[in-house]
Amino acid sequence: MAAKPLGEFARIARFFAPLALPGALNLRDDVALIAGRRGEHYVLKADAIVEGVHFFADDPPADVARKLLRVNLSDLAAKGAIPVGYLLTMALPKSRNDRWLASFSRGLAADRRKYRVGLFGGDSVATRGPTVLSLAAIGRVAQGRAILRDGARPGDVVYVSGTLGDAALGLAAIKGRLPRMSRAARRYLERRYRLPEPRLGLGRRLTGIARAAADISDGLVADLGHVCTASGVGAVIEAARLPLSAAARSIIARSPGRIRAALTHGDDYEIVFAAPSHASGRVAAAARAAGVRVTAVGRIVAGRGVRVLDAKGRRLRLSRVGYRHV
Amino acid sequence: MAAKPLGEFARIARFFAPLALPGALNLRDDVALIAGRRGEHYVLKADAIVEGVHFFADDPPADVARKLLRVNLSDLAAKGAIPVGYLLTMALPKSRNDRWLASFSRGLAADRRKYRVGLFGGDSVATRGPTVLSLAAIGRVAQGRAILRDGARPGDVVYVSGTLGDAALGLAAIKGRLPRMSRAARRYLERRYRLPEPRLGLGRRLTGIARAAADISDGLVADLGHVCTASGVGAVIEAARLPLSAAARSIIARSPGRIRAALTHGDDYEIVFAAPSHASGRVAAAARAAGVRVTAVGRIVAGRGVRVLDAKGRRLRLSRVGYRHV
Repeated sequence: MAAKPLGEFARIARFFAPLALPGALNLRDDVALIAGRRGEHYVLKADAIVEGVHFFADDPPADVARKLLRVNLSDLAAKGAIPVGYLLTMALPKSRNDRWLASFSRGLAADRRKYRVGLFGGDSVATRGPTVLSLAAIGRVAQGRAILRDGARPGDVVYVSGTLGDAALGLAAIKGRLPRMSRAARRYLERRYRLPEPRLGLGRRLTGIARAAADISDGLVADLGHVCTASGVGAVIEAARLPLSAAARSIIARSPGRIRAALTHGDDYEIVFAAPSHASGRVAAAARAAGVRVTAVGRIVAGRGVRVLDAKGRRLRLSRVGYRHV
Repeated sequence: MAAKPLGEFARIARFFAPLALPGALNLRDDVALIAGRRGEHYVLKADAIVEGVHFFADDPPADVARKLLRVNLSDLAAKGAIPVGYLLTMALPKSRNDRWLASFSRGLAADRRKYRVGLFGGDSVATRGPTVLSLAAIGRVAQGRAILRDGARPGDVVYVSGTLGDAALGLAAIKGRLPRMSRAARRYLERRYRLPEPRLGLGRRLTGIARAAADISDGLVADLGHVCTASGVGAVIEAARLPLSAAARSIIARSPGRIRAALTHGDDYEIVFAAPSHASGRVAAAARAAGVRVTAVGRIVAGRGVRVLDAKGRRLRLSRVGYRHV
């Protein structure tokens, strides 16, 4: 009889944590740290994406390139780091011809200008399967200033940047699951899905202010949950305070269950962070300086796990297929 | 009418060189360099391997893991660097179950002990295609001491480490194309193909001695050719001086054309390097200290390209399909 397969986290704990170096933070953070130039650390992060799983085969190659880069930059942003460069490996089927590569590299060139992050090197190999792209990003941060997952304390305020749920609604729109929407709203949401904006300007201004942070790649509840686990605390989120774009707000007004796009769906690549309540002025100043909206959505509490409350203070039970009051 | 597709190097020059950072050495070396701890550089290298292309689907997972790691460590070795750690991304089909991962991670654990190199982090994603594995390795070297490709000068002696051709003959043996061989010889050659030995001990002892180096992944002529191109020089190799294992020697004695396994086939992961002739004593001392055989096989000359001479001084013309006198 075959054993039940291990989940992602159990696999990491069983097979990979024993291989980890001290700078790998027990593989419990999003990144690793190594000593850098005088007074600095390098922040390391790698992600892979697969055609047909993480992007569509006919997505514009420039968008695929930029999303691959940006999801990694988003992790650097959440740690308060400044991008330095990246290594890129590509497993390419024959269909990825020179025209595809030309567009792909144009996307990276555009983001080189935008984020001042360039290529260190890499590898390109042939595959008979789908395109697989892997990017290892390197950032830098002053020593002791990286914002890790494990510093949240009961009483801290939980903040998120930008607006939540746009990417999940954008993906639903691409899949044709969102009728009745203005063209402008659709374009806005789809763009939020295809081209996340790593919050680098905000992240580096939060060093010394935020006590713990993560980027929202798996959904607010999941990513805040990782922060809570690492910090040995719990959190309470008020759903009514979640920052929503005008497009998302109008969809959720008609279909309230879609609020879970902002709670349990990923791909927004905003930052969730915890800061002491006495730092609210400094948080607001950092947000203003970065030109990014920041919203208090809840509190860190003693205990464990993330609870979500509705406008009347009732707990929302969330699952992959919906939510209900409990 | 479709344009002829660009080759690997033209693709790099056209699409990726414009993205490169200064530390990327114009993507003309095997590695990139970034400032490290005081007085040091970090050396960066990434490679990807694909099931069915670079390894067999039923290869022992521990061997696949170790080869993936070691081909990257081999690049660090050729630059004179000491390994620090690595990032690993894996695109895995469902068939790569927990048992496969357990064996895979055991391979990395064995090499962690052997080479003192551990995991910084990474990513694991699902794919419907073949397994694709990507590894980004980080090493360190004293500033100004990395052995790059571009320092070879006419008159330098060309050396190689270990023996050449074993990996290509090992692959031929695995494919059943080498009859008449002792079991010991077959086991030796197959092991050389499956588990290269990065020459880390030798490489770090060659800093300050070798003027240029590369690891032999694509074959001696190709990899020495890269050194020559970067250095603006040519090279002459004497085929009779190529170091061969006993197993390779006996095969080549029966089938002289197989000498090209040592000239134009890759996967040996030895080091080819150029050092001034007055440094021969220091080269020999470094080899002794590292416990690795080092053999002078030719000379750097003015001009360009790599010429190979036979025992009578006649030029060998090499191609993918064989060689002939010209």
